[in-house]
Amino acid sequence: MPPLLKKKKKKKKRKRQRKEMRSGDIQVLDGGNASRLLHSVDAFVFDCDGVIWKGNELIDGVSDTLHLLRSQGKKLVFVTNNSTKSRTQYASKFLSLGISVSQDEIFSSSFAAAMYLKSVQYPPDKKVYVVGGEGILEELHLAGFTAFGGPEDAHKTIQLKENPFFHHDNDVGAVVVGLDPYINFYKLQYATLCIRENPGCLFVATNRDAVGHMTNLQEWPGAGCMVAAVCGSTQKEPIVVGKPSTFMMDFLLKKFRIDTSRMCMVGDRLDTDILFGQSAGCKTLLVLSGVTTLSILQDSANNILPDYYTDKVSDLLQLLGP
Amino acid sequence: MPPLLKKKKKKKKRKRQRKEMRSGDIQVLDGGNASRLLHSVDAFVFDCDGVIWKGNELIDGVSDTLHLLRSQGKKLVFVTNNSTKSRTQYASKFLSLGISVSQDEIFSSSFAAAMYLKSVQYPPDKKVYVVGGEGILEELHLAGFTAFGGPEDAHKTIQLKENPFFHHDNDVGAVVVGLDPYINFYKLQYATLCIRENPGCLFVATNRDAVGHMTNLQEWPGAGCMVAAVCGSTQKEPIVVGKPSTFMMDFLLKKFRIDTSRMCMVGDRLDTDILFGQSAGCKTLLVLSGVTTLSILQDSANNILPDYYTDKVSDLLQLLGP
Repeated sequence: MPPLLKKKKKKKKRKRQRKEMRSGDIQVLDGGNASRLLHSVDAFVFDCDGVIWKGNELIDGVSDTLHLLRSQGKKLVFVTNNSTKSRTQYASKFLSLGISVSQDEIFSSSFAAAMYLKSVQYPPDKKVYVVGGEGILEELHLAGFTAFGGPEDAHKTIQLKENPFFHHDNDVGAVVVGLDPYINFYKLQYATLCIRENPGCLFVATNRDAVGHMTNLQEWPGAGCMVAAVCGSTQKEPIVVGKPSTFMMDFLLKKFRIDTSRMCMVGDRLDTDILFGQSAGCKTLLVLSGVTTLSILQDSANNILPDYYTDKVSDLLQLLGP
Repeated sequence: MPPLLKKKKKKKKRKRQRKEMRSGDIQVLDGGNASRLLHSVDAFVFDCDGVIWKGNELIDGVSDTLHLLRSQGKKLVFVTNNSTKSRTQYASKFLSLGISVSQDEIFSSSFAAAMYLKSVQYPPDKKVYVVGGEGILEELHLAGFTAFGGPEDAHKTIQLKENPFFHHDNDVGAVVVGLDPYINFYKLQYATLCIRENPGCLFVATNRDAVGHMTNLQEWPGAGCMVAAVCGSTQKEPIVVGKPSTFMMDFLLKKFRIDTSRMCMVGDRLDTDILFGQSAGCKTLLVLSGVTTLSILQDSANNILPDYYTDKVSDLLQLLGP
């Protein structure tokens, strides 16, 4: 065989081997491994958008699946990077979709931001400026902090008169940035001045998702957009408390005392949910009901491989049900 | 001598040598080197904000200095990363401050964006969406392109009703992002959808300055803030046409046919002006009348060293004048 042809054949073989190895790493969920998965874990940690619901619609079969898992004695936890709502508001959303979930089972990135400030013993006499939704303010207030900004600054504008001076509060010691559909220059300027001019001011991001599910028809800019804007003007990197940062998982661990190897993270995003689960040492299940398609999962550019994948959460019900 | 002490002494010597080398690299402008600089160049390229003016105030002695340089036969060029104005608007600003400058001597990043699209033969039947000021729209229109967005979208809001759908124009083939004091979610969403959903859509940034001089009292978020926001939601990097990208310098070279080694870049920012001049092979003069202080220049963390530095442009007048 001529050397060039030999080389090509060898290359083809290596490519095939790699492909086999890749598909060997990821298992499509079936009756056998679903049952093994169920018995190997004590808790299921669910992402919400794209897993439980899309926009304001519940994904088919979710309610019965959660019921089955609860009946098997599994602990359920709902983790969401969406910071616009507080845990109370999330519990109401679950209820409006016909699912009863207690506030203690919900971990939103708005709550995570408040818990992060608690964890670093942020002084209660200092204030927090918020670029984001009502949910962040509510969680910060519940945790005992003085927070302002957010929705109340939605319609504020800057004054571009002769030599403008913008006043900001020197007592702000932390800025929390999350998804903000009412982002404006006033808020960006306020956050920028606090971070640049108040000594030691913390810059906390609820999460950095590039896009989010405000609708199930399109992808809209996510918190990653607002967080990047503040990075751009301050030249600083934030402390991220939402997925894929493990801050929330460490918090969950302390609260529920379940070893992460006995947890299964269920999500629709490779770079947040699956990475989050893997970083924490959980088993991981990707559902294709959200942003990730089978071709994205199998693309050679993707290096984040879940343990299992399936179309939607309710496949568990079909595979495990009577 | 014990080995540790010897090592420490050696380290101290190396540190001293590095310090000497550093201060040897940068020369404070004096009568001798100012005269040599003048004779070694045919053109002076000036940054505007922090060099010619601060906010709406001319910096002392600028007018007479420019007059002196012109009388010596030097070509003058004014390059600004501020994209909110067009060249015509800049010429008016110069005039309002008592300086006569022709439109041909002005290179704003708004003009650079239009010239970039010309240089890549952007099809005139395609549209351009603008996140930024009137200056960008005006330059794009003057170059024959159909552009929209900018100020006309300043007060638009998104509709967060049940399952919202946001319409965008599929004929947009380029998004230009610059400083936008009226940034909002509508504009970020429009830009994001064009870049993510219109095949091959270009993402052009006028510049990425973190902060800008909207006032001489404070630093306000610059174009880098808006550009980063769009990077955050699209996960794409822009083509930058303003400083320190050399696109404008390449354009200047073609226009004036002056070798860059015979040009002197005069600016107040290390990471845009001085880097821009150095990348293009120009001589560089840092003035301390803008954002850079002597301590920033001499900080060991700074690696961008101009050939010369001085307090302000008019020092040239004092050192070279009769």
